[in-house]
Amino acid sequence: MILKTPEKFTRQFGKAESKGYQSPEVWSKVTGKAVYGIDLTLPGMLHGKILRSPFPHARIKQVDTRAAEALPGVRAVLTGAELENRPFGIAVEDELPLAADKVRYIGDEVAAVAAVDLQTAERAIKAIKVEYEELPAVYDPVEALKDEAPLLHDNFPGNIAWQREVERGSLSAAFTEADLVVEERFTVPAIHPAYLEPIACIAVNDPYTGITLHTALQSPDAVREIVARVLKYPLSKVNINGPVMGGGFGGRVYGNLKVYILSALLAIKSGSPVKIQLTREEEFTAGRPMIAAVIKMKMAVRSDGTILGREADIITDNGAYSAQAPWVSKTLSERNDSVYRIPAIKTRVRLAYTNKVPTGQYRAYGNQAANFATESLIDIAAKKLDLDPLELRLKNCVREGDTTVHGLQIGKCGLAECLQAAAKEIGWDRKKAGRGYGLSAAIHANGSLVFDKNFRGASALVRLELDGRITIFTGEQDYGQGTHAAFAQIAARALDVSPVQVTVESKQTKTAPFSTGALAMRQTTVGGKAIQLAAEDLREKIFKAAAELVGEPVAMENEVLRSISGQELELAEVAYHYHSATSGLRMTGEGKFVPAESDYDESGYGNISLTYSFASHAVEAEIDQATGELIIHRLVAVHDSGRIVNHLTARGQVYGGAAQGFGMSCFEGYLFDQGRVANASLADYKIPTALDLPQIDPLFIEIEDPAGPYGSKGLGEIVMVPVLGAVANAAADAAGVHVTDLPLTAEKIYQALAGWECEL
Amino acid sequence: MILKTPEKFTRQFGKAESKGYQSPEVWSKVTGKAVYGIDLTLPGMLHGKILRSPFPHARIKQVDTRAAEALPGVRAVLTGAELENRPFGIAVEDELPLAADKVRYIGDEVAAVAAVDLQTAERAIKAIKVEYEELPAVYDPVEALKDEAPLLHDNFPGNIAWQREVERGSLSAAFTEADLVVEERFTVPAIHPAYLEPIACIAVNDPYTGITLHTALQSPDAVREIVARVLKYPLSKVNINGPVMGGGFGGRVYGNLKVYILSALLAIKSGSPVKIQLTREEEFTAGRPMIAAVIKMKMAVRSDGTILGREADIITDNGAYSAQAPWVSKTLSERNDSVYRIPAIKTRVRLAYTNKVPTGQYRAYGNQAANFATESLIDIAAKKLDLDPLELRLKNCVREGDTTVHGLQIGKCGLAECLQAAAKEIGWDRKKAGRGYGLSAAIHANGSLVFDKNFRGASALVRLELDGRITIFTGEQDYGQGTHAAFAQIAARALDVSPVQVTVESKQTKTAPFSTGALAMRQTTVGGKAIQLAAEDLREKIFKAAAELVGEPVAMENEVLRSISGQELELAEVAYHYHSATSGLRMTGEGKFVPAESDYDESGYGNISLTYSFASHAVEAEIDQATGELIIHRLVAVHDSGRIVNHLTARGQVYGGAAQGFGMSCFEGYLFDQGRVANASLADYKIPTALDLPQIDPLFIEIEDPAGPYGSKGLGEIVMVPVLGAVANAAADAAGVHVTDLPLTAEKIYQALAGWECEL
Repeated sequence: MILKTPEKFTRQFGKAESKGYQSPEVWSKVTGKAVYGIDLTLPGMLHGKILRSPFPHARIKQVDTRAAEALPGVRAVLTGAELENRPFGIAVEDELPLAADKVRYIGDEVAAVAAVDLQTAERAIKAIKVEYEELPAVYDPVEALKDEAPLLHDNFPGNIAWQREVERGSLSAAFTEADLVVEERFTVPAIHPAYLEPIACIAVNDPYTGITLHTALQSPDAVREIVARVLKYPLSKVNINGPVMGGGFGGRVYGNLKVYILSALLAIKSGSPVKIQLTREEEFTAGRPMIAAVIKMKMAVRSDGTILGREADIITDNGAYSAQAPWVSKTLSERNDSVYRIPAIKTRVRLAYTNKVPTGQYRAYGNQAANFATESLIDIAAKKLDLDPLELRLKNCVREGDTTVHGLQIGKCGLAECLQAAAKEIGWDRKKAGRGYGLSAAIHANGSLVFDKNFRGASALVRLELDGRITIFTGEQDYGQGTHAAFAQIAARALDVSPVQVTVESKQTKTAPFSTGALAMRQTTVGGKAIQLAAEDLREKIFKAAAELVGEPVAMENEVLRSISGQELELAEVAYHYHSATSGLRMTGEGKFVPAESDYDESGYGNISLTYSFASHAVEAEIDQATGELIIHRLVAVHDSGRIVNHLTARGQVYGGAAQGFGMSCFEGYLFDQGRVANASLADYKIPTALDLPQIDPLFIEIEDPAGPYGSKGLGEIVMVPVLGAVANAAADAAGVHVTDLPLTAEKIYQALAGWECEL
Repeated sequence: MILKTPEKFTRQFGKAESKGYQSPEVWSKVTGKAVYGIDLTLPGMLHGKILRSPFPHARIKQVDTRAAEALPGVRAVLTGAELENRPFGIAVEDELPLAADKVRYIGDEVAAVAAVDLQTAERAIKAIKVEYEELPAVYDPVEALKDEAPLLHDNFPGNIAWQREVERGSLSAAFTEADLVVEERFTVPAIHPAYLEPIACIAVNDPYTGITLHTALQSPDAVREIVARVLKYPLSKVNINGPVMGGGFGGRVYGNLKVYILSALLAIKSGSPVKIQLTREEEFTAGRPMIAAVIKMKMAVRSDGTILGREADIITDNGAYSAQAPWVSKTLSERNDSVYRIPAIKTRVRLAYTNKVPTGQYRAYGNQAANFATESLIDIAAKKLDLDPLELRLKNCVREGDTTVHGLQIGKCGLAECLQAAAKEIGWDRKKAGRGYGLSAAIHANGSLVFDKNFRGASALVRLELDGRITIFTGEQDYGQGTHAAFAQIAARALDVSPVQVTVESKQTKTAPFSTGALAMRQTTVGGKAIQLAAEDLREKIFKAAAELVGEPVAMENEVLRSISGQELELAEVAYHYHSATSGLRMTGEGKFVPAESDYDESGYGNISLTYSFASHAVEAEIDQATGELIIHRLVAVHDSGRIVNHLTARGQVYGGAAQGFGMSCFEGYLFDQGRVANASLADYKIPTALDLPQIDPLFIEIEDPAGPYGSKGLGEIVMVPVLGAVANAAADAAGVHVTDLPLTAEKIYQALAGWECEL
């Protein structure tokens, strides 16, 4: 069977016809031919395994690896003692490649081995004798902050990994002026991104080229820097080749650093390539789920529905080590404040160490957790004021030209349009009896201007091939979102060629420009802009070379390169001319997108992103009064992500993000028993299947935003944000009572219906 | 064990200390960690096998693949019938991926299969039933040219694959004027390059990225074009990733095209990656050895030793298909004419099809075969005229400023110095009794100005990494010659950094500039020049960015970047500045080396190369009078390859080339029995081992040549050229009689000593 490339579709991605353009990359996936990281093997490759702590908190007295080292087929054994001078971290430097003095969670990495096969590696792991002295442990983040709590890290007193307190505007005035104050305590459990491909990495060490990691990552450049620092290698001697990624959803931004670091160290020590692949159980017990949060939120509202102020006290659960949790906690604690015009804000957020699995991040970076709280509180307020939740939202929502309470500068903004469209489409004015209806609204950034003040943009190379086709080298990543299809379309539009003529190279750190990664919804807006600029640069170079060739000015029109006197040229001719004139270089356009610096100040006030995307979701739901089961009939997802580059992949993003939002709303969440993950398998940790999903209707308010390429902006993360609030509000509307503890299981709703206190 | 990069050695490769710099790439080879093409496997990979003809010449009546297709585990079967519209060739288009109408040699490719394992593939091959009608065959190239010979290809009458007749100057005047005319018939057998790694290729087909071939080639760009044409794929949809190469020696310039084409076709048909790996027997019976040649040569000499003219009638043995044999025949027939000032030349060369293994090329491209003839004839003439062979050579050898009989323009030339040094070092004036002494001289081109008139040079990219290190992307290939070490040194010198700071990327067609390949001794001279230019371009860019950074002019001195006021900068700082200013691009110097066009005309007259390398070898030998065994005591190899970039690798080239020259002189050569290769294994086809080699003493006459980078030029191929003549002349000097049929086995010398006629 020979798969054929479709040769026909339109150039203008804004046109209806372009809805059919699809990245040919998906074909290798649907035919089962795609080679994912876990599928890779290399000649001479060893298998690495990690010995993990059975205790939530214990001092390591002794590690005896002699029996493991003596096993035939064992090629390297590593323990924490030899790695004590290699601390690392993402937001906070609180980890070692292997625990040296003590272990801090059940699953903590204690030793690692590389052996000729997995069975031998597992035997070797079992042969390592570790003497522990158990220590008292703490599992609840609220308890962890108390004075008497056991301390996890000596240099983090009070078990506070990170904290922040911010006040803007006059909160006391707001509460004085308020006609109504609503207050609730919301809880959100830790959530695993549940990508289908467990994290796997093959490390190859070569004394000339350095370490090469074959592993799928959303931010290979960021991981590369950390690995280089831990290995004490020059940066250019660490490279990451990305195979096809089996899902990421934020969980592969930094992935699981210990896997990359330990496979690299084992490869160096053994002298052979080493593959470490997490089991599904390890993914749950030693992965990097998104932080759980306890959000106490209070809102001051005038009787006409005007929101006057909002106070929040948030405790997030870091687990044993920090990874990205400080940054996630920050986004969780403030992004949502910019959905509405709220004049006064006070927020305290504390990230607490607990003796549980360390945390990382997930699609939307915590924004969805706070959105659940805020949107629930708005509906509670609307009910108490007897106002229409839609009207209350429309009254307060941010609009173009606003500067929000944290200094975000709102450019093009279709939030009000999103709210109106979502309400209209769900049937807000013709609600069915026995059904509950919920609305929500959201904002999300498009890349960060402030994460690294010296690196706010993106770059790209767009190259003309000898056969006249186009190749894009981008720092950005396609891990299923359809970024490559969008990039091909953007370059095709700039060059006035068909997107099938364009190939996007998968990111390899050696050949792709640097990028902060596939995160913060920066791919299309920031990465895509760089591609537009690079394609425009290439276009000028093509015109220049073509003009040299024919001796008169040349332009592109309707996919044909033509001189002013009417002479037609093939792009391949121009390419060959350049090839010959340069002895073999390929004509390459450079795109350097460098956004202006932000006014972001030390207090965290200022514009953090190039532009913002907006959304409103509406849900129609029903409660089975006998069981408390929440039956969701329909989700309308209305998005302002600017001009949609590719409707097919955009709808795909909405379906996927909505499914994950449903999972977080109704099914998912870590369960712990004395620090042990009680649902460490996909059989016990429930993610929704296709059968669990309601009808999902994506709608796009296509307000062109000049910030992004051809008016487009990001969609991937924001999809997830408003689902939780809309579901919770629909459930509350149907049940008559708000459940504030996610997920909204039948048990909890049943309890609420029965009038019991919901145990938090 | 952690291998450490040596951090210390000198910058100036001309200095004596630089002799110790060695490409760190060799370490992965000596530690056994290098992954060669044959070592590679890919997930889901199938194994391909080729069904070959058992007859030297036969019509294919029927191919029945049903039984093979029905075998469990067989995923694709290909026959010639479905590929008849895909003819291909290198110099001449005379091949099909699989034989369709008839087979032309024992080993001719008839069908190919891909199966889940090698055993199943072999079973499937055996299950294919082919009905043949045997045809009369011809094995001897001289016989093949006769009218009554069986015809191999209908469209090549007279079995002439290619022919050429050229006359320059007045040959009749030369022979009239001559005091002496010497004439001999020389024969050289077909020679296999005998690289240690058999040719292997994994082809992967993807509907988005196209075909990727994982295979080690000296000229991947050339192979890529042919494969794309056969597959009818756009050029940019065929890419070649080169693993570490287990030897090439010219045999991997085009390698074995059928292997690449068939693995690609099987991958397309089966939908899975397919690996074809030749067995050693297949390498001999269906590889591409260098043509055998019968050279009738006549030389007109004045009594003072002045060479007046030379006539040659050459028949080369093409085997069944042409590959590069026409080009090799051309070089064989004329390159050697430019070693001496010969005013008149007449040459006829005919390349004859025979029913034997098709031929390709080998290090030195036939120059060594003609050199054997010319240098033998010169010694024969010297003996007859009672002249010193050294003096005769010095009298006639080309010198700087000459234009040779074929129009070669001799620039810097140390040939006379090479001759004198070789003679001096071997002890020409103090010959030992009972020993024979032989001298020879050679010329070889440095890249071709005429192979593709639109592509005469090379290009390179030299990139500054974020850590301040340097990466080179070159179209050229290192397959053991040490090219990468030389390139690192050239870039290091241009940038004034240490070579350990420089990494040379292995060639991948997707990211490296286009190149004609590792052939024609163009790597250092042409490829190196492009790297010098790229490094110089990068240096200017570094200075510009650094000046921006410090606000005043900056220069590099003794590996330190310093502003005019004395402020020191790290290269990493400059890299980071650029990184930030471009949002992630890496500063890249472009090197475009485009030599001026040549005056080469349609008759083949003109300057064919940028510059030329020269050599003289001297041999001291002895004959065991009882057995005829030739005992070689010493070879002195004196080379003018300009300034030597790396003495260590240069000496390595001389040792290797001399060993192969000895092999061709004394051991090697295909033996045929009715078209069947009689010595199709390394047990029967003798290549010299280290124990068979004499003392080899390399000497370099370092005359800087401005044509190459920093005065350097090529060495790899010319090393092999003068060995044959020097050995043959030493043998003749010791035996008192010239053997003109290679290899110089004990049997042949014994016969010659006994006064028998040598059977040719």
